[in-house]
Amino acid sequence: MTGMAPLDLTADVVTLTEQLVDIESVSGNEKEIADAVEAELRALAHLEVTRFGNTVVARTDQGHAERVVVAGHIDTVPLNDNLPARRDEKNLHGLGSCDMKGGVAVALRVAATMPRTNRDLTFLFYDCEEVEEERNGLKILGDRHPELLEADFAILMEPSDAIVEAGCQGTMRVDVTTHGERAHSARSWMGRNAIHRAAEVLTRLNAYEPRRPVIDGLEYREGLNAVYVTGGVAGNVLPDSCTVSVDYRLAPNNSEEETLAHMHEVFEGFDIVVNDTAPAAMPGLSVPAAAAFVEAVGGQVKPKFGWTDVARFSVLGVPAVNFGPGDPHLAHKQEEHVPLAHIESVERQLRTWLEA
Amino acid sequence: MTGMAPLDLTADVVTLTEQLVDIESVSGNEKEIADAVEAELRALAHLEVTRFGNTVVARTDQGHAERVVVAGHIDTVPLNDNLPARRDEKNLHGLGSCDMKGGVAVALRVAATMPRTNRDLTFLFYDCEEVEEERNGLKILGDRHPELLEADFAILMEPSDAIVEAGCQGTMRVDVTTHGERAHSARSWMGRNAIHRAAEVLTRLNAYEPRRPVIDGLEYREGLNAVYVTGGVAGNVLPDSCTVSVDYRLAPNNSEEETLAHMHEVFEGFDIVVNDTAPAAMPGLSVPAAAAFVEAVGGQVKPKFGWTDVARFSVLGVPAVNFGPGDPHLAHKQEEHVPLAHIESVERQLRTWLEA
Repeated sequence: MTGMAPLDLTADVVTLTEQLVDIESVSGNEKEIADAVEAELRALAHLEVTRFGNTVVARTDQGHAERVVVAGHIDTVPLNDNLPARRDEKNLHGLGSCDMKGGVAVALRVAATMPRTNRDLTFLFYDCEEVEEERNGLKILGDRHPELLEADFAILMEPSDAIVEAGCQGTMRVDVTTHGERAHSARSWMGRNAIHRAAEVLTRLNAYEPRRPVIDGLEYREGLNAVYVTGGVAGNVLPDSCTVSVDYRLAPNNSEEETLAHMHEVFEGFDIVVNDTAPAAMPGLSVPAAAAFVEAVGGQVKPKFGWTDVARFSVLGVPAVNFGPGDPHLAHKQEEHVPLAHIESVERQLRTWLEA
Repeated sequence: MTGMAPLDLTADVVTLTEQLVDIESVSGNEKEIADAVEAELRALAHLEVTRFGNTVVARTDQGHAERVVVAGHIDTVPLNDNLPARRDEKNLHGLGSCDMKGGVAVALRVAATMPRTNRDLTFLFYDCEEVEEERNGLKILGDRHPELLEADFAILMEPSDAIVEAGCQGTMRVDVTTHGERAHSARSWMGRNAIHRAAEVLTRLNAYEPRRPVIDGLEYREGLNAVYVTGGVAGNVLPDSCTVSVDYRLAPNNSEEETLAHMHEVFEGFDIVVNDTAPAAMPGLSVPAAAAFVEAVGGQVKPKFGWTDVARFSVLGVPAVNFGPGDPHLAHKQEEHVPLAHIESVERQLRTWLEA
């Protein structure tokens, strides 16, 4: 399977990142990179390796009381004239360098070169993170084999500027619709204009004061925003319907029921349809494994603004953090790159924390 | 040209309407009906007939001091399984029966059977009223031969429930655009939401009190309405732009400059782009010819809500009214029809007014 093994897990972590970037793995096309990862890990006696589609799971079994998941997705967004990888003095450039093959390289290095650690480890290398949720390799694994995600703590190696970003925001997307009655605009007093009624919806959005709850010492900032507005029938007709699509980003201390109730409260008097919802993830920093990790990597923690797969662990009761090389704002950009120092420091910190 | 002459101008007006309906003449396909009209009118010694494309002009020249235009379009909206004509006890059904072959039949009857009238007459039978303005036969004629539209008064035989509808509303369509700054919705405090800013635009529309000016004794009702609203970039992005498309229906006593100034006043602080504008038509009922006409047809007059080609005459300084058989609300509907009594009463009233 690896006749020309493109990966060398004994190379330094930057070289390994470059090798990973040079295996194109746009979502849906992860077979080659999954094959290479699987082959290299199967060669290691201290790991039990299982493959599901293009997701590879590798576990240690040293008999420790504590188990930690280290996870990363192996797919990228589409090519944008940004392969192969290019390295300069400070950065590695190329598709996936930041999101998130630097993190994957760190995980592979730890998996390959630390046969003995102070905690048992479960490595997850999964596919299709950048596309619709139904295809997400971590979601599919969690649905079919939730026991493989069981752990005391999880580290998702998404780019986080090489410091810990804890928890993540949840999202709820609702359509708020106003109703009216059509009429010819030449005789507008015969109808009721649904777009005009949306004034009240937008006024409430303007007046809304997002909460800023502090959880485990981290301040999360919420947000309630119209992301789309649509209405209109014809250039000479009063519209009978107008929809404001609202994106609510919420802190990790709300249940879905509470969130929906809050939406009904904010938009009282209007029709609401929930389009999409994704749970937030608690930072979980009070859990001993998490607290020890944060301390080991220097104590610096920020709240995560945005949604990541850490929420999937949170739902299973596993505290999880984002910790990976690269600036998250560069993800999905043509010019994405990762500082070499980030990759190296993340590997160093992880090794220090896991040393037996 | 009229080997099988489909029109008989000596038949009663209802029969003539039925003959006109049975010549299919969807906009762009008016050659056959224009040929028939032209041929019948050329056979009449008291008329001077000219043809421009599929528009036919027929004028009397009796040396009167006063000249009146009688105009009607000969095209229809597209077929909708509503041909041939079908007559019952009270109505004639079929495509164009209401909009506006009943009116065209009345005009043709007057043209053919009243060689002597108390005013000189200009009959205009024109094409492409139901499509984009550039193709409108009356507009083209007015642009190239404005002298043919010169008159003291004009009667447009559009359906108006067999009573006089005077003047018409003008329209101005403006796009009102708000601006913001994009940001990821997870970090909404980094941006400014353009849809939220549109709250102010819609609030002003809600608060707007349309004017109801009285002109020549008729109350015109204005209207200011959002007809479309659009904004949005992606489900997780604060939009940087939102556009509310506004349709302003205005009474006939405003110039285009005044109207635009009014829009700038109402939407002060926002970008405005004018998309479309059509002038209103003054009712002009104080002009002797118009007053005499209204008196002759029974004195009942309503203001016209909506825009019709009467505005083209108004722009040329010719007072014009709508006066034709049929309910204007049935125009463009599959089930359009015209009451036989309307066609007959409109012909009778017109004849009475014109009798030498």
